[in-house]
Amino acid sequence: MAPTVLSTPEDYQKLVDSVDTFLLDCDGVLYHGPKVVEGVKTVLNHLRASGKKVIFVTNNATKSRRKLQEALNKLELDAQLEECFGSAYASAVYLSQVLKFPKDKKVYVFGEEGLEEELDAVGIAHSGGTDPEDRDFKPPVDYASFKPDDSVGAVLCGFDSWINYKKIAKAVTYLRSNPECKLILTNTDATYPTHGSLFPGSGSLSIPIVNATKRTPIVIGKPNTTMMDAIIADHKFDPSRALMVGDNLSTDIEFGLNSGVRTLLVMGGVTPREAVFGDNPSHVVPDLVMESFGDLAILAKDKA
Amino acid sequence: MAPTVLSTPEDYQKLVDSVDTFLLDCDGVLYHGPKVVEGVKTVLNHLRASGKKVIFVTNNATKSRRKLQEALNKLELDAQLEECFGSAYASAVYLSQVLKFPKDKKVYVFGEEGLEEELDAVGIAHSGGTDPEDRDFKPPVDYASFKPDDSVGAVLCGFDSWINYKKIAKAVTYLRSNPECKLILTNTDATYPTHGSLFPGSGSLSIPIVNATKRTPIVIGKPNTTMMDAIIADHKFDPSRALMVGDNLSTDIEFGLNSGVRTLLVMGGVTPREAVFGDNPSHVVPDLVMESFGDLAILAKDKA
Repeated sequence: MAPTVLSTPEDYQKLVDSVDTFLLDCDGVLYHGPKVVEGVKTVLNHLRASGKKVIFVTNNATKSRRKLQEALNKLELDAQLEECFGSAYASAVYLSQVLKFPKDKKVYVFGEEGLEEELDAVGIAHSGGTDPEDRDFKPPVDYASFKPDDSVGAVLCGFDSWINYKKIAKAVTYLRSNPECKLILTNTDATYPTHGSLFPGSGSLSIPIVNATKRTPIVIGKPNTTMMDAIIADHKFDPSRALMVGDNLSTDIEFGLNSGVRTLLVMGGVTPREAVFGDNPSHVVPDLVMESFGDLAILAKDKA
Repeated sequence: MAPTVLSTPEDYQKLVDSVDTFLLDCDGVLYHGPKVVEGVKTVLNHLRASGKKVIFVTNNATKSRRKLQEALNKLELDAQLEECFGSAYASAVYLSQVLKFPKDKKVYVFGEEGLEEELDAVGIAHSGGTDPEDRDFKPPVDYASFKPDDSVGAVLCGFDSWINYKKIAKAVTYLRSNPECKLILTNTDATYPTHGSLFPGSGSLSIPIVNATKRTPIVIGKPNTTMMDAIIADHKFDPSRALMVGDNLSTDIEFGLNSGVRTLLVMGGVTPREAVFGDNPSHVVPDLVMESFGDLAILAKDKA
């Protein structure tokens, strides 16, 4: 089944009329690195003015919503805090609203400020994270110091550039000693693209904990439905009137398909044209395809 | 096919007569934690006096042969340096003698002193390891500082309690930028038993590098045949006149079976009796089984 290609103002208007909530991937849809995609600012303002809900959905786990908002607004996209939904916040919401995390337990954080900030926002206690006690570790390893702690109800792993043996061993000790303790990963991205190269990502930093505990983790980020559960728990919209927009078949589009939300693939990002229109296309087929999300700007012009 | 059970002095004598080289796992065969298995000291001396070669084969990757020797001699086992063969030394020998590692290249070490000492012993240059430059890392990560380096011909990973983002990112950069650069793991042991608990082992600490590069590593430790290739390259014995003795079916016995060396399982270690003699035994079947390696001591007494 081939996707429907949208290319005329009529196509675009029909799309917008059929959607109440736009779930938007960021890099590759709104901007490429430091450059905003042409027309996108107009599109966002037009959608907001038309009463549509806009939610920026990203797997970035180091940034809190506040930091995501700052980053988007550096690009002059007028993002509101409640429009931002990173995997750090998604994890906090998932713990709080989906798992109903017990008030008397805390989360051990293998991650940075962003994760802590979002746990604070939903009122979940935590340890680890930016605590100098865990960050400033120098061997030799004091194995006797690692004690089970039943007050730790979950280990939450994101990107942690302070990764060290103490953090890994603490997380492993809490999980191995307590089958009730949950292992949650913000995402499993193996690499992190920056400075023109690929560096170890969240999924590669947390894998020692997975490997040493043999646990099957709960994974939050796209394309997992846990992320959608968290977004819907927080925003309470009708999935049948939502649209997931992205440039990546294996994260964004699979995410929508897995969650029963319609999908729109935009070209010009990470997906090569052949993966959609070639002789041997990807098995992941979006519902809709258009060249650029910025092309919807023509609707604002028609209206003006 | 059931294993042959050895239980009489005649069985033992026939065994010893058929073997020139005894490859001995350490923990579970020679000792249990701090306690030497009864008779083992006598057996080792008897075998040596009978002109047999004894080689201690362990996956321990933090210890150099010198340190393994010290540890065995604390237990009064009279180990000689050339009798010791840990996965650190095995890795160095594999690089040097099997891979013929080029003289103008160096190895990036994700590991500790033991690995460096063994690379020094075989004359292979190295970086990383105990270099304070790589050990004493504090974020933020300076991504621009990670540069490809074609003089790095291999990344060698063992147990590194100084694991940090810089070490992982350096290793990943060398591997991603140079398909010729090899990824070698001393072993893939997920956990490390100590202080009555299981802590993250070598295999769990190096997995971020495997995951972020999508490389298929060369793995040295038991049960991989690479370890036997290294032992034979160094000791030049006839495998048909060798015997691998161990207490672990999935490392020691598989190691012998994989390498075409006869295998002897001793009881009293990690393998439960049912795995050998039960109704539903393990698919890994040793050639021979005996209660304790120390039982061979009776041969020394008969002789005395």
